[in-house]
Amino acid sequence: MAKIRLGMVGGGQGGFIGAVHRIAARLDDEFELVAGALSSDPIRALDSANSIGIVEARAYTSYQRMAETEAKRSDGIEAVAIVTPNDSHADIATIFLNHGIHVICDKPLAVSVEQARMLGAAAAKSGKILAVTYNYRGYPLIRQARAMCVSREIGKIRIVEVEYLQDWLAERIEIGGSKGAQWRTDPERTGGAGAIGDIGVHAFDLARYVTGLRLDALSAELTSFVPGRRVDDDARVLLRFEDGAKGLLWASQVAIGNENGLAIRVYGDRGGLEWHQSEPNELWYSQLGSPTQKLTRGGPGISVAAGQATRLPAGHPEGYLEAFAFIYKEVAAAIRASQNATDRNDESSFAMAIDGIAGLNFIQAALLSSAGGGVWQAVEKPS
Amino acid sequence: MAKIRLGMVGGGQGGFIGAVHRIAARLDDEFELVAGALSSDPIRALDSANSIGIVEARAYTSYQRMAETEAKRSDGIEAVAIVTPNDSHADIATIFLNHGIHVICDKPLAVSVEQARMLGAAAAKSGKILAVTYNYRGYPLIRQARAMCVSREIGKIRIVEVEYLQDWLAERIEIGGSKGAQWRTDPERTGGAGAIGDIGVHAFDLARYVTGLRLDALSAELTSFVPGRRVDDDARVLLRFEDGAKGLLWASQVAIGNENGLAIRVYGDRGGLEWHQSEPNELWYSQLGSPTQKLTRGGPGISVAAGQATRLPAGHPEGYLEAFAFIYKEVAAAIRASQNATDRNDESSFAMAIDGIAGLNFIQAALLSSAGGGVWQAVEKPS
Amino acid sequence: MAKIRLGMVGGGQGGFIGAVHRIAARLDDEFELVAGALSSDPIRALDSANSIGIVEARAYTSYQRMAETEAKRSDGIEAVAIVTPNDSHADIATIFLNHGIHVICDKPLAVSVEQARMLGAAAAKSGKILAVTYNYRGYPLIRQARAMCVSREIGKIRIVEVEYLQDWLAERIEIGGSKGAQWRTDPERTGGAGAIGDIGVHAFDLARYVTGLRLDALSAELTSFVPGRRVDDDARVLLRFEDGAKGLLWASQVAIGNENGLAIRVYGDRGGLEWHQSEPNELWYSQLGSPTQKLTRGGPGISVAAGQATRLPAGHPEGYLEAFAFIYKEVAAAIRASQNATDRNDESSFAMAIDGIAGLNFIQAALLSSAGGGVWQAVEKPS
Amino acid sequence: MAKIRLGMVGGGQGGFIGAVHRIAARLDDEFELVAGALSSDPIRALDSANSIGIVEARAYTSYQRMAETEAKRSDGIEAVAIVTPNDSHADIATIFLNHGIHVICDKPLAVSVEQARMLGAAAAKSGKILAVTYNYRGYPLIRQARAMCVSREIGKIRIVEVEYLQDWLAERIEIGGSKGAQWRTDPERTGGAGAIGDIGVHAFDLARYVTGLRLDALSAELTSFVPGRRVDDDARVLLRFEDGAKGLLWASQVAIGNENGLAIRVYGDRGGLEWHQSEPNELWYSQLGSPTQKLTRGGPGISVAAGQATRLPAGHPEGYLEAFAFIYKEVAAAIRASQNATDRNDESSFAMAIDGIAGLNFIQAALLSSAGGGVWQAVEKPS
Repeated sequence: MAKIRLGMVGGGQGGFIGAVHRIAARLDDEFELVAGALSSDPIRALDSANSIGIVEARAYTSYQRMAETEAKRSDGIEAVAIVTPNDSHADIATIFLNHGIHVICDKPLAVSVEQARMLGAAAAKSGKILAVTYNYRGYPLIRQARAMCVSREIGKIRIVEVEYLQDWLAERIEIGGSKGAQWRTDPERTGGAGAIGDIGVHAFDLARYVTGLRLDALSAELTSFVPGRRVDDDARVLLRFEDGAKGLLWASQVAIGNENGLAIRVYGDRGGLEWHQSEPNELWYSQLGSPTQKLTRGGPGISVAAGQATRLPAGHPEGYLEAFAFIYKEVAAAIRASQNATDRNDESSFAMAIDGIAGLNFIQAALLSSAGGGVWQAVEKPS
Repeated sequence: MAKIRLGMVGGGQGGFIGAVHRIAARLDDEFELVAGALSSDPIRALDSANSIGIVEARAYTSYQRMAETEAKRSDGIEAVAIVTPNDSHADIATIFLNHGIHVICDKPLAVSVEQARMLGAAAAKSGKILAVTYNYRGYPLIRQARAMCVSREIGKIRIVEVEYLQDWLAERIEIGGSKGAQWRTDPERTGGAGAIGDIGVHAFDLARYVTGLRLDALSAELTSFVPGRRVDDDARVLLRFEDGAKGLLWASQVAIGNENGLAIRVYGDRGGLEWHQSEPNELWYSQLGSPTQKLTRGGPGISVAAGQATRLPAGHPEGYLEAFAFIYKEVAAAIRASQNATDRNDESSFAMAIDGIAGLNFIQAALLSSAGGGVWQAVEKPS
Repeated sequence: MAKIRLGMVGGGQGGFIGAVHRIAARLDDEFELVAGALSSDPIRALDSANSIGIVEARAYTSYQRMAETEAKRSDGIEAVAIVTPNDSHADIATIFLNHGIHVICDKPLAVSVEQARMLGAAAAKSGKILAVTYNYRGYPLIRQARAMCVSREIGKIRIVEVEYLQDWLAERIEIGGSKGAQWRTDPERTGGAGAIGDIGVHAFDLARYVTGLRLDALSAELTSFVPGRRVDDDARVLLRFEDGAKGLLWASQVAIGNENGLAIRVYGDRGGLEWHQSEPNELWYSQLGSPTQKLTRGGPGISVAAGQATRLPAGHPEGYLEAFAFIYKEVAAAIRASQNATDRNDESSFAMAIDGIAGLNFIQAALLSSAGGGVWQAVEKPS
Repeated sequence: MAKIRLGMVGGGQGGFIGAVHRIAARLDDEFELVAGALSSDPIRALDSANSIGIVEARAYTSYQRMAETEAKRSDGIEAVAIVTPNDSHADIATIFLNHGIHVICDKPLAVSVEQARMLGAAAAKSGKILAVTYNYRGYPLIRQARAMCVSREIGKIRIVEVEYLQDWLAERIEIGGSKGAQWRTDPERTGGAGAIGDIGVHAFDLARYVTGLRLDALSAELTSFVPGRRVDDDARVLLRFEDGAKGLLWASQVAIGNENGLAIRVYGDRGGLEWHQSEPNELWYSQLGSPTQKLTRGGPGISVAAGQATRLPAGHPEGYLEAFAFIYKEVAAAIRASQNATDRNDESSFAMAIDGIAGLNFIQAALLSSAGGGVWQAVEKPS
């Protein structure tokens, strides 16, 4: 099956979310990144493109030009990933949609409701896909939680609590060199929202996705705790959903000790669910009057939906793949170094023949010791 | 930078570890899979190759032929990943090394010490890299633990405890249809080892890698608990390391309730360390007389080595990338479906314009409510 | 030191909190329970008194009479514990204070602010102690948390989150036979409050005690989720403290899967704290830019205040004492049975000579095996 | 019901385990401590007795004299608790048994198998109870685990793993002032055993009690890691039980970061169990092919045996009672201070009228705010 040709706007060297989008696009081998407007600075745009394998001819400095040019190519991009700051999402996305190119846009979609609506209309008119990367929907056990809410396995939902706690803005780092902190705390660039827009909206989408409920009304208390900060860095919000469910949303970027603590709890009239991103492979399920169960990714009692979102057997935590990939990454570095005698690296962390032999020595000694009734057996050491 | 051209032996449709190797090779964009001897069955070899984007001309049914042919091509593979059952590793690896091709071999390297040694010699002679995928070395916090052992941050090591517990062989499933269980419990194919070779050797390598210590002697108690089983399904081993450290290794495939429970604890004369694969982003560090600290991937107090093995900011658990990638996977499916009107799928889980608008409605209502002193604010629902 | 003579009002057979007060009074050997008005029913009052060692002459059916009579005795009670339903607290306490007797009253003090104030005035006038059993203040690590807030170890407090979640009222059990559910859901007996008064006030006191902050204002959303229930069974409250701190309080009795989940998190501008009653021996302490620390009861880094509230060395969880006491309880039963040949119980769970011998056999075999280099050593079995 | 009259040998001021025995004896109100030979030093014996309410006439300096004298009194002790160092247990217990007094002896029963056997014989001859305080049998969920093993709810037992890890002997503190460390590391006083006898025997008894299995043979590796130490401070032992079960026991007093880490895991052919003393209210139960369940003390699915060992409702952790008792302890201190004007203490931690009023102010404000649709409501502060 041919890969889908993908372009990217934003995501030049040094950014975090651009790299995440590229890995995500690559992981299941469905996309091929062939074009990019990674920076408006010509040098940086070219360098960035080069470092990720985009050819010079398709390394643009203007997204408008990129949209036009790619739309005309017979091998032009079919989809574009937009990973720029929030205030530019709507413009960029609209242009690509208008050129008949599918759009994958980082969240939030825009900085105002009006922008978002116009963009929605543009998507509808284009007949193209406009996806927003509310990425937390992708966890297998979030799929499981949703399936259990929608099927009413926990009964009619009464209470939804969702929280997203960080601490990286506990001090006024926006006046230092952090670019990420700068635009996130600049009301002109965020539409006035701070934590509520940066992470609160993730929490909101998670509650919405998991429960399938729509929000009726809210009462919010947004606070700027850090002196001098121009947007909220803490948001506590009471929620009223349709059908009588109530809720609580707490997003904070000053909760010291929380790196990226996203969690959701849902209580229905027959059961309860609890999930924490810090342990993404576990979903706690309680039925009234029964012991709480730990549902695991790929483990017993898991729905079809969650099963489909699983690449690994149970017990192999998400993260297993990343660790495995580091081995490959280091082997690649070693292979490249081996082609260049001056660049030899003897500090490899991956296992080599000597380690493989050590393993066999171990197995052999264990077999011998056990066969001998547990006698102590010397273990040979590979030299 | 050009990608390294990679081939694969084994890993046809339905296998687990072949897919893991391919994702791992792809994640950091260092390799390009261009050839494969995925199966000895011609139909299956071709189908498998096709499904993962290997062209027909380079879909081999014999690894010997693959080695010969690829070695002659100017664009032939530079490295090969071997993911076949253990008893074939040595032969296959030797052939590729002899043809000047780097080898990435699944563990264990071989089924006997002799085989492993001969293979080591072949690698040395070839000047090529022979890597064994003891993949647990790739976790960032395992790197951190190693750094703290090697630098003697926990002092001189006294005790090492490592355990690897599973339960998938708690019943005699090898007489059912599980191919994975069949060869893993067939002493002819494993060199006589059961759990000790399948997972015990992972635990052994982890202890070896983290502590940097070499094993002097062991006393083992291997047991086949499941009636009729021909190899051990539980191994408890006392360890004596060089320099006086002692240890304990426990590998079991009948420990019901453990999906894939790999864990290590190391105690020195000044401190202790504890890590569990089920929570791979946390390393517990205790100094004598101080409160225990939770070190996190990317968090404060982390070594250079562990930092290099990190792709994401602290608090984004390993697994974040996989979840993110599901969004991309589903967008790809939707894009493909959109190109084929008869295959439309309206059940997408990824967020679309309507969800993006919902998020903006939420943010706007929160800003208004808070500005109004916390008045309840109706939230518009996108239609 | 002579024990303090204690009386009790309420707490007849079958009640929970009366027994808790009695154990609490006994644990540190400071009180001696000598009188009681345990029930208004004469038979039940006498039976209850008898079963807990109160002599007939001091088993009252009226608390008024008890107050009068005991006040006149030269060996009369010095203090009284009040464990009746909430609506009677104020009357009873006032009478005892007026008779010069110290009062230990279960929470909440009363069912209205006016009652509570009058009672406070009565206490002030009497010069006697009026204690309210906000018992969660008694945890050693709550003392520690308070010390760290008051000393500003976490800096100026910004956010306080406290939650108290239960699920025992997830169904309308007040229409069944549960007496505890009946009065707790009867607005006439609770002053109109449900969960907010029963457990919310515990959460409030915990926040107040730990932080030392006083509450300025609140915005509350109280809900009766269970159809037909006459008081709130869920309360979510936004808090504004003096000095600019903000907070969140959530009390629920319908959160399925939570037995008695009391927890508090406090974030200041230099650090954060987190404590869960389910693991009362651990307090999580984060300083900005340092790894999170696990402070333990009796462990390193603990304040004087918390140290004073500790009876056991570190690592002996609260609960160790209760388990130890079961051994004594069963020995007592065995001693009583041994005095009555027809009541012999051979099913003792406590260890006896045979178990003690087994232990010595084990130690001896271990010493011999180890001395012999780890040879397998048969273990004698006591007969 | 009259309390059982109890005496104590050992347990003078400053000791830990004597105080634990006294609290345990008091908790359920079954015993009354009336006599003691708390120290062989006359002054210390008398002071210690005085401080715990034993009258001077029954404060002995010799346990022989105590046994003789008490046996003759009509109100003499019926049982004695022995909390002296291990080497004296057998002598003391024998004398009391010979005088017809029940014995509750701290573990281990003796320092040699021969001693233990002779003591067992003395107990049998006396017809009196000889209890050994393997106190970990007293945890409700240990009862539950035992019930599930004995009833074969987890099937035929295959593997038992038990560990007891501490770190207080990680340095050679026996050459400092620690009396507890001195006798525990003196082979003359312990019969040659170190960690294996001090805590290993607890772990052994726990395995024995929970599983009901008897040990056939063992292979032990005892080590003295701390230079100069005369007994083992780490013991790793392979176990073979009757009926084919195998096991692992690890006791260490140098495992830095472990305060008192007792834990047991049992795997049968149908299920598995896991329990940690650090979270004594949770027992993890896995059936093959089902999600793991968290059984809680007093929660759903608990056996009769475990239910009987429970004093509190589910979710009130063991420790709740201790915390509650601190409130009483501080009230007692305040009462005593109030009787002595010069000793006034205004730093009480327990709640008083002002706190009770604060609670009512909170409840009232919450009711008003909620009734007003969530308006912000000022909260009165008690003065």
